[in-house]
Amino acid sequence: MNDGEGKNCPIFFSLEIFGDKWSLLILRDILHFDKQHYNEFLESDEGISTNILADRLKKLESEGIISKEKDPDNKKQFIYSPTKKCLDLLPIILEIAVWGAKYDPETKAPPEEMAKIRKNRKEYIQDIRAKFQYLDQ
Amino acid sequence: MNDGEGKNCPIFFSLEIFGDKWSLLILRDILHFDKQHYNEFLESDEGISTNILADRLKKLESEGIISKEKDPDNKKQFIYSPTKKCLDLLPIILEIAVWGAKYDPETKAPPEEMAKIRKNRKEYIQDIRAKFQYLDQ
Repeated sequence: MNDGEGKNCPIFFSLEIFGDKWSLLILRDILHFDKQHYNEFLESDEGISTNILADRLKKLESEGIISKEKDPDNKKQFIYSPTKKCLDLLPIILEIAVWGAKYDPETKAPPEEMAKIRKNRKEYIQDIRAKFQYLDQ
Repeated sequence: MNDGEGKNCPIFFSLEIFGDKWSLLILRDILHFDKQHYNEFLESDEGISTNILADRLKKLESEGIISKEKDPDNKKQFIYSPTKKCLDLLPIILEIAVWGAKYDPETKAPPEEMAKIRKNRKEYIQDIRAKFQYLDQ
């Protein structure tokens, strides 16, 4: 996986950027639930606090994982969008979902959707990437 | 990925268990570097503190992700081993490595190993699982 630990380890590199629960939940909200606005992230059921949300959005933006632009429909708010670097996080997020659906005895994850992720992983990822096709233009 | 957020979300379920940098680094140490002892985890280059290490090991054990047994060679220490539930985390850890190797401009991850993960992901995972084959017995 790597030839050493510490700062040369690709796992450590990644985890320093998004290796915390809240960052990954924000990324889920952006990539899967199509959330774009600060208040939408704040309203997620997990109850992220406003200071953690602001901190994580700033960090993800500074790392080039999300971009922030003024909302053309409401100049008082911003739109947060994924970058290509963010779309490359999809395999990680899907694998986290697969594990959770397998081991949570009370999971409500739709079995047919989880089966699709397991069996046609590439296709499933392509479908999500297609939503953000404008990033390739 | 799921039909809602909050406690029914498989991603949230997973992240509540291992969604922090240190837990994932310990899992890397166990699955990739074949570390087994408390002091080996403590010596990893990232410099985990002893209280965080103890806390995460306890949590991972209580969640059934690792098992803890007296070391037959030295009754004063313990051996930490992965469970099957832990082996199912391999895809997540590999994807985190793939992303890090792609985006770290100073990565030292061996290109041929990363290419193998990308191209023969299943085989790569099987090779690691084979190291822990005794779990299937």
